[in-house]
Parts: sequence; structure tokens; C-alpha cells
Amino acid sequence: MAELIHVPDASDPRLADYVRLTDGQLRKSLEAEEGLFIAEGAKVIRRALETGHRPRSILMSERWLDSLSDVLPALDCPVYLVSDGTAETLTGFAVHRGALASMTRLPLPSLPDALAGARRIVILEDLVNHTNVGAIFRCAAALDVDAVVLAPRCADPLYRRSVKVSMGAVFSMPYARMEDWHKDLALVREAGFRLLALTPAQDALDLEDAVASAGDRVGLLFGSEGDGLSSHWISEADAAVRIPMSEGALAKGVDSLNVVAAAAIACYALTR
Amino acid sequence: MAELIHVPDASDPRLADYVRLTDGQLRKSLEAEEGLFIAEGAKVIRRALETGHRPRSILMSERWLDSLSDVLPALDCPVYLVSDGTAETLTGFAVHRGALASMTRLPLPSLPDALAGARRIVILEDLVNHTNVGAIFRCAAALDVDAVVLAPRCADPLYRRSVKVSMGAVFSMPYARMEDWHKDLALVREAGFRLLALTPAQDALDLEDAVASAGDRVGLLFGSEGDGLSSHWISEADAAVRIPMSEGALAKGVDSLNVVAAAAIACYALTR
Ligand SMILES: C[S@@+](CC[C@H](N)C(=O)[O-])C[C@H]1O[C@@H](n2cnc3c(N)ncnc32)[C@H](O)[C@@H]1O
Ligand SMILES: C[S@@+](CC[C@H](N)C(=O)[O-])C[C@H]1O[C@@H](n2cnc3c(N)ncnc32)[C@H](O)[C@@H]1O
Repeated sequence: MAELIHVPDASDPRLADYVRLTDGQLRKSLEAEEGLFIAEGAKVIRRALETGHRPRSILMSERWLDSLSDVLPALDCPVYLVSDGTAETLTGFAVHRGALASMTRLPLPSLPDALAGARRIVILEDLVNHTNVGAIFRCAAALDVDAVVLAPRCADPLYRRSVKVSMGAVFSMPYARMEDWHKDLALVREAGFRLLALTPAQDALDLEDAVASAGDRVGLLFGSEGDGLSSHWISEADAAVRIPMSEGALAKGVDSLNVVAAAAIACYALTR
Repeated sequence: MAELIHVPDASDPRLADYVRLTDGQLRKSLEAEEGLFIAEGAKVIRRALETGHRPRSILMSERWLDSLSDVLPALDCPVYLVSDGTAETLTGFAVHRGALASMTRLPLPSLPDALAGARRIVILEDLVNHTNVGAIFRCAAALDVDAVVLAPRCADPLYRRSVKVSMGAVFSMPYARMEDWHKDLALVREAGFRLLALTPAQDALDLEDAVASAGDRVGLLFGSEGDGLSSHWISEADAAVRIPMSEGALAKGVDSLNVVAAAAIACYALTR
């Protein structure tokens, strides 16, 4: 049974895993150094446990104990009980959604391991927005994608907000991170994937045509929210592929789809 | 030429339009009462002006003046110049993206006016997330949708975050707000639209089949992030329609797509 420990003081070192959860820069280095991630809310915590993740500790207000009463007996980590004020001082936001858990990251598969057996994969270049990354994992899980590959600089799928938006799909969707932005895309192509670089560029191939001739193993590449895919990745891909937009879109100031919308459409077109 | 006025004090009543921009509840009533909305960043402000919106005032740090030097000469509203500290105290966040403008809302078209001439429309029930609403407007503009209809409780497309995520599509995409949640969907159907209620329910019609037989005027209905469409709206629709999800999705904890992903896919399927 997890041990219940009341902690009154937000600066107590035992609570260090939960410090300043809204400070992206700080969390990035802290979570990488410690090999941890934060799961928020009973549903996500339960999902993380079911997929083999071990908690380092749990943090919550006493009134949320019931929401995890089914899982606490089997855990042997400390459960820190704090007041709402302490939680807010510690994390930087009002913790409304119940418990937080600090979990140990599992080792990621290598790129070859993630590709083995996969037929349809999604490859994300330098996305910066965690909500977008989480939503794309959710799409991928829903639309028959087998694995996700991330460029070295792509935002972390295990960041609190990504985890949440993904409905926990980040726990069950296999994913790997490239080591070398410049070279590793070629490894994916050499593994037999036809690489389709999604871009709003006018001269790109129409999505339906690209999908019709795509063959058995396909990788869909998506670029960052601001600048889109790098020219290096576009040139490494087998084809540049476009989701046609209406004539009037540009006049309305819209020169591209949001990357989640683009990923949803491309995955859907591929699976039909 | 807009008049430049240095304002040192965050509590100066001339800055009242910009107070506590992160406080959703407060902003909702303030913006409705005053008939204003906030545009953030030079790009969005320029877009708002181009689409016929009039500024009540502009707020910025002096160093952003250049970013709007092309539009300021033609405006006759005050431009309040504030320090970063004053801006943060006033708005509740660090204003990094340059200028903010308080703009007068234009009157919305009536429901019949928004429907007149439209062939493909998107109808949103009780979405709560402003980012989702903005992203759906962006999709709609990109994917040949003619108008958007909102249930009385759907989140405001002119809320700061929606505007931004939409790339300004909320300014150019015609939209109307229903007065009566219970009755007004029938008005849309009576105007000749075939209403497709998008839902992940297993027994719904496959999207491709629904679209193939949809006819000339189609309304796509989407529900809230939590509970989805109400049973009343599903029963008022001509068909319940499903985007098929992979067998394994449920096992991965994913029981639905995010509403932006669903809207992107449905609009895409309709326009092909
Ligand atoms: C917001 S867009 C980036 C826009 C950027 N200006 C560009 O030209 O790529 C983010 C990503 O979404 C995908 N995307 C957006 N609109 C698309 C479209 N119409 N067709 C294909 N991909 C699109 C691309 O992968 C792109 O890198
Ligand atoms: C997050 S979902 C709501 C989930 C909710 N549990 C339900 O059963 O509807 C939000 C909206 O996205 C749309 N949606 C999500 N997944 C869908 C799917 N597979 N097929 C059709 N619509 C979907 C629906 O309009 C839904 O109301």
C-alpha cells in the first residue's frame, strides 16, 4: 500500500518533482535529468500504470484520495497529501483535476526497433506545441498508424499537456526519437518506407494521388507550426504532398491548415 | 493619425478594455457588454482592419510601434504606450507578441442570412475550448465551407485565443449564432440542409457513405470536447455519422478523435 504523507511546506525537497509545472524550460531539463514525467488526473494516471509505468510519487489534496482508491493499494510509492495552497505555490497553477503523479520514463525503442513491423508511420519534425503533439498521437492511435518518429527537436510527447491531450495514446503508441536530424530520415527510407512530405506548397502532389500510389509502407512527414518542414527534409522525401485548400482560403488569410488538422486528414486518407 | 499616449499606470481607466485577459469569465462578460474583442499581434490586427473592424484603441510597448507603422497613420483611435511591467499587471500575462488592439464587434448575420447561398456549413454545439473553435474556423476557411453556425453556448470565435489560432479566419468566415438551442437546428434543416451529426458511436453511418449520398446542401454537426453532441441534436439530424477508428484505438484508451481532427476529416471528405 502506498504510504500517505502530509506535507505542509511547498519547498519540501520531497515535492521537487512537481515544481513549477507551467515553466516549460525548467520542466524540460528537470524531467530529462531525472527521467520522469508528470501524469495529471486519475484517468491519465491509471492509463500510465496500465501501460507499465512506475510512479515515483503521487501528489494530491486529501479529497481526491477516493478517485484513486482502486490503484493505491497496489503501489509502494509515497503519496504526498497537500493543501490547495501548497499545491498552487509548488506547481504554479490551481490543481483542479485531482491527483498528479511523477512517473519514471521507460526507455524508448531505437529507431530500427520502432520501424520493425510498422507499415504506416507519422514523422514529426520540429513541432513546438505540446498540445499539437498530443493531439497527433491521439489521431495516430485512432487512425491505424503503427508508430511515430520524432526529430531530435520535436516537442516531448510526455510533457504534461501532451499526455493529457493524447488521452494517454503517448503511452501505447510506439515512438522513437531520431539522433541525427540530418541523416536519420534516410534510415527510414532505407527501411522501405515511402516518405510523403506534407506541405501546403502549390506545386506539391495532391494527397489522394500520392496515397493511391503510395505502396505498402508509408511515412507521413509533418513540419513545425511556424515554418513547416525544412527544405532538407522535403528534399529527402519521395514526394511533396498537398492537401488541396479552397480557392478562397488565401484571400481569407489562411495559407495552411493547423498541423493537427493536416495530420488527421492525411492519416485518414491513408487508412481508407 | 492615431494619437500616441504614454500611460504609466495599469489602473488607468483608459486601459479598461485590456484588463485580465487570461480571466475567461471576466472577459466573457466584459467583451459582451462593451461589444469589443481583442486582436493580438500585428498580423491579426492588420487582418481585422482589412475585414472592416474598427479599433477602439491600441495598446503596446513603444518598441512595437514600427510593426504597425503602415496602419497607424490611417487610424484615429488612441494608441496607449505602456511599459512591459504595466502591460503584464494590466493583462495578466507577459505581452510578447507585440501590440494588442481592442476592436468593435460587427453585428452578426441572422441565421437565415448566414444560410442564404451557403452550400456547406459547419454547426458547432457546446464546444468549450477557444483553441478548438479557432482551429475549426481555420479548417472551414481552408476546406470550402461557406458558413459556420454556433449553438447559443458554443465558445466565442472572437475570444483572443480563437482569433489567433484561426489565423483571422473568424473575421472572414460568415457565422451566425442560434438563439434557441432546442428549436433552431430544425430551421437549418428546413432551409434545405441535410444534417450529418458527427459522433464516434459504433452504430453510426460510415463517413464516406454518408458523404456520397449527402446531396447539395450539407450541415456537419460537431459536439463538445467532453460529452459530444446532445441526444436532442443527434435525433434532430438526418443521420449520425462516424469516422471509422482503428480496431486497436479503444485498447489504447482512445475512444474518439479530438474535435478539430474530426472536423478536418469531415470537411475534407465533403469537399473531395
Ligand atoms: C501550420 S503548417 C506550416 C505552414 C508553413 N508556412 C508551411 O509552408 O509549411 C504546419 C504543418 O502542417 C502541414 N500542413 C498544413 N497545411 C497543409 C496542407 N494544405 N497540405 C499539406 N500539409 C499541410 C505541413 O506538414 C506543415 O509543415
Ligand atoms: C472528443 S469528441 C466527444 C467524445 C464523446 N465522448 C462522444 O461520444 O461524442 C468531440 C466531437 O468530435 C467529433 N468526433 C470525435 N471522434 C469522432 C469520430 N470517430 N467520428 C465522428 N465524429 C467524431 C464529434 O462531433 C464529437 O462530438
